[in-house]
Amino acid sequence: MALQVISVLWKAHVEDRPVAADDFEVATNSIDPQAMGEGDILVELLYLSVDPYMRGMMRDSKGYYRQPFTPGQPLSSRGIARVVRAGPGVGSGFEEGDVLSGMLPWSSHAILNRRAQAALQLVDSRLLGKLPLPCFLGALGAPGMTAWAGLKKIAEPIKQGEVAFVSGAAGAVGLVAGQLLKTKYGCNVIGSAGSNEKVALLQQLGFDAAFNYKTTDTAEALTQVAPDGIDIYFDNVGGPTLDAALAAARPHARFLACGAISQYDTPEDSRYGVKNLMNVITKRIKLRGFIVGDYAAELGGEFHEDMSQLLLAGKVKALQHVTQGLENAGAAFVGMMGGGNVGKALVQVVETDPFPVQQ
Amino acid sequence: MALQVISVLWKAHVEDRPVAADDFEVATNSIDPQAMGEGDILVELLYLSVDPYMRGMMRDSKGYYRQPFTPGQPLSSRGIARVVRAGPGVGSGFEEGDVLSGMLPWSSHAILNRRAQAALQLVDSRLLGKLPLPCFLGALGAPGMTAWAGLKKIAEPIKQGEVAFVSGAAGAVGLVAGQLLKTKYGCNVIGSAGSNEKVALLQQLGFDAAFNYKTTDTAEALTQVAPDGIDIYFDNVGGPTLDAALAAARPHARFLACGAISQYDTPEDSRYGVKNLMNVITKRIKLRGFIVGDYAAELGGEFHEDMSQLLLAGKVKALQHVTQGLENAGAAFVGMMGGGNVGKALVQVVETDPFPVQQ
Ligand SMILES: NC(=O)c1ccc[n+]([C@@H]2O[C@H](COP(=O)([O-])OP(=O)(O)OC[C@H]3O[C@@H](n4cnc5c(N)ncnc54)[C@H](OP(=O)(O)O)[C@@H]3O)[C@@H](O)[C@H]2O)c1
Ligand SMILES: NC(=O)c1ccc[n+]([C@@H]2O[C@H](COP(=O)([O-])OP(=O)(O)OC[C@H]3O[C@@H](n4cnc5c(N)ncnc54)[C@H](OP(=O)(O)O)[C@@H]3O)[C@@H](O)[C@H]2O)c1
Repeated sequence: MALQVISVLWKAHVEDRPVAADDFEVATNSIDPQAMGEGDILVELLYLSVDPYMRGMMRDSKGYYRQPFTPGQPLSSRGIARVVRAGPGVGSGFEEGDVLSGMLPWSSHAILNRRAQAALQLVDSRLLGKLPLPCFLGALGAPGMTAWAGLKKIAEPIKQGEVAFVSGAAGAVGLVAGQLLKTKYGCNVIGSAGSNEKVALLQQLGFDAAFNYKTTDTAEALTQVAPDGIDIYFDNVGGPTLDAALAAARPHARFLACGAISQYDTPEDSRYGVKNLMNVITKRIKLRGFIVGDYAAELGGEFHEDMSQLLLAGKVKALQHVTQGLENAGAAFVGMMGGGNVGKALVQVVETDPFPVQQ
Repeated sequence: MALQVISVLWKAHVEDRPVAADDFEVATNSIDPQAMGEGDILVELLYLSVDPYMRGMMRDSKGYYRQPFTPGQPLSSRGIARVVRAGPGVGSGFEEGDVLSGMLPWSSHAILNRRAQAALQLVDSRLLGKLPLPCFLGALGAPGMTAWAGLKKIAEPIKQGEVAFVSGAAGAVGLVAGQLLKTKYGCNVIGSAGSNEKVALLQQLGFDAAFNYKTTDTAEALTQVAPDGIDIYFDNVGGPTLDAALAAARPHARFLACGAISQYDTPEDSRYGVKNLMNVITKRIKLRGFIVGDYAAELGGEFHEDMSQLLLAGKVKALQHVTQGLENAGAAFVGMMGGGNVGKALVQVVETDPFPVQQ
């Protein structure tokens, strides 16, 4: 019996801000589970992540560290799926009922060959029902690992009481970075975000200071809350915020170049030029870029253990911003890029979450 | 008997390019060697260095890593001097005839108290007459150590065959950096400089490729000579050259932020904005600023041994650009900033070099 499948397709490359209604297309087709090949699995999608790095895949750019999306094809991103049926023959060992996470197409169901299965892994079943599924795409997934591994590999050694500034602090990566800097490392943590509600949330979560970069000048705010300067800058946004952080840096500051979302929707030739790089020399700043995937093999296990403990103990709070319905995935992506989310932005594809957390 | 002394004074802070005839003043006064205090020494200056970092001291800028020059007072810089007389009482142990290097005032003679003597050290007497005195301000002095320590602390580990790009390559630091990258590390070395004569010199000295950044577009030149990109960038100039190097970087490239001379004569609000920083993230670039003085205690001895061997063996060639006469020191500084020098720019203060090298 054929299965009705909804997908979200990418229409064409765009240079400036994508528009949900124009650039994404919802399509329906059907697949035939009987026709599954040797080693294939059929999965139903539960959740899909919408992430800033996807913006780079919506350009026609060579040299980006990921391949662009193919116009007319479903987008793809990290997600959580459940195996509905394992096909004939030898697959990757996944069985019916397994909950998997990893790269998935933006489709309600999908038949995945062995190659596609290689990009998936079992979700730690000990944690199902204890931590919400979205958490595995957020604080316990790639964004959480980004914060955790970035701090470990680039900011450490960190001295208690050092002053750390996190931009994009109310987002998926930023919220984890700020909380780790506070509870794990004992820093004095400053966060910036794009609304007063986000600022209030940061204060609630234990940030020592927070400000709305849309209504406050970042350089002035930093002078006020960190008059002696900052030791660590966790950069999620780039652009003018990076300039302000360079001016505010203390000697020997470490700068984690994690993201530059303020520039993602800007065509290459009109990007913001950073003027305060001379501080890198005079203050001996270490500015280092990193991509979380590089650390998966080396640090994935340690991250998973440490972060799941912190989450279960309530020492780090995981926040998610869930949009219902795959057909709204384009809007969820565009909304996230515009600051609509608090915590990890994602899409609930399945109607009823099969592993609700009992509070 | 009073001694006639010539000095070069700094007139007033300037924001844009200094002018030799306007911003420096030659003054004459006399000092009385009989009136030397307890522990003082009287020195005659032999050579003075003119260095780009001095440009920052000609501004009225707070937060620069060095104090600004005092208007109406002699400038100061690293130099070589000889002790003419040691005064009464206990000094720093320097004796008549000793040749010293370190921070000195721009005066033909000077009486130095113990505090001033603390900024001086004996020149390695084993090398006098074997290496020219200017060399102790160049390849065997702070600029050479800048190249040597920067590569050791920031670029290492370096694999043979890695592609290294050095800007300001015909200058004091750049010439040493390029030669070390070639002979000590076995890199494929590209240099940029501001004239065709400089480019020819670089090729003679063994650079694998060199180009004139004033007549060639740096991004295009890099694409041609390093089609697969660069692994190491030794940045002496900042600005648009840094942008081009970011675009040309290979994954995991190391960028040594040594200097940004293209911006030193530019008022702060009109500095060049660097647009290609997103490459730092996607290519996981490590960009790190450093100040040579930080490594003096840790690496000074090892540098001195290694570099003097390389120089005596002819594996690194030391080039100096000598201006005669202290009264021309302002012009020498301005000329160096404008690219007038090949190799280390300095001023010969004494009429006859007391330690000529016998060829
Ligand atoms: N290096 C890596 O391996 C890696 C991995 C994951 C993520 N990242 C990067 O980390 C950053 C955060 O990612 P995320 O997944 O945690 O996303 P996120 O922060 O949850 O969502 C993006 C946020 O960016 C902020 N933003 C949008 N435009 C902005 C602008 N012009 N200036 C300042 N902030 C702006 C918005 O918050 P406001 O309301 O505060 O504006 C928005 O909520 C991104 O730059 C991403 O590319 C890097
Ligand atoms: N971090 C440290 O501890 C440290 C220590 C020493 C020096 N430095 C830095 O290293 C750099 C080189 O210093 P140095 O002593 O070796 O001086 P240098 O290179 O001997 O002399 C300066 C040279 O800069 C070049 N230049 C001037 N304007 C330029 C522009 N707009 N664009 C590109 N190049 C320009 C000129 O050569 P062209 O003919 O090629 O234009 C000039 O000869 C400077 O930036 C300096 O501040 C840093």
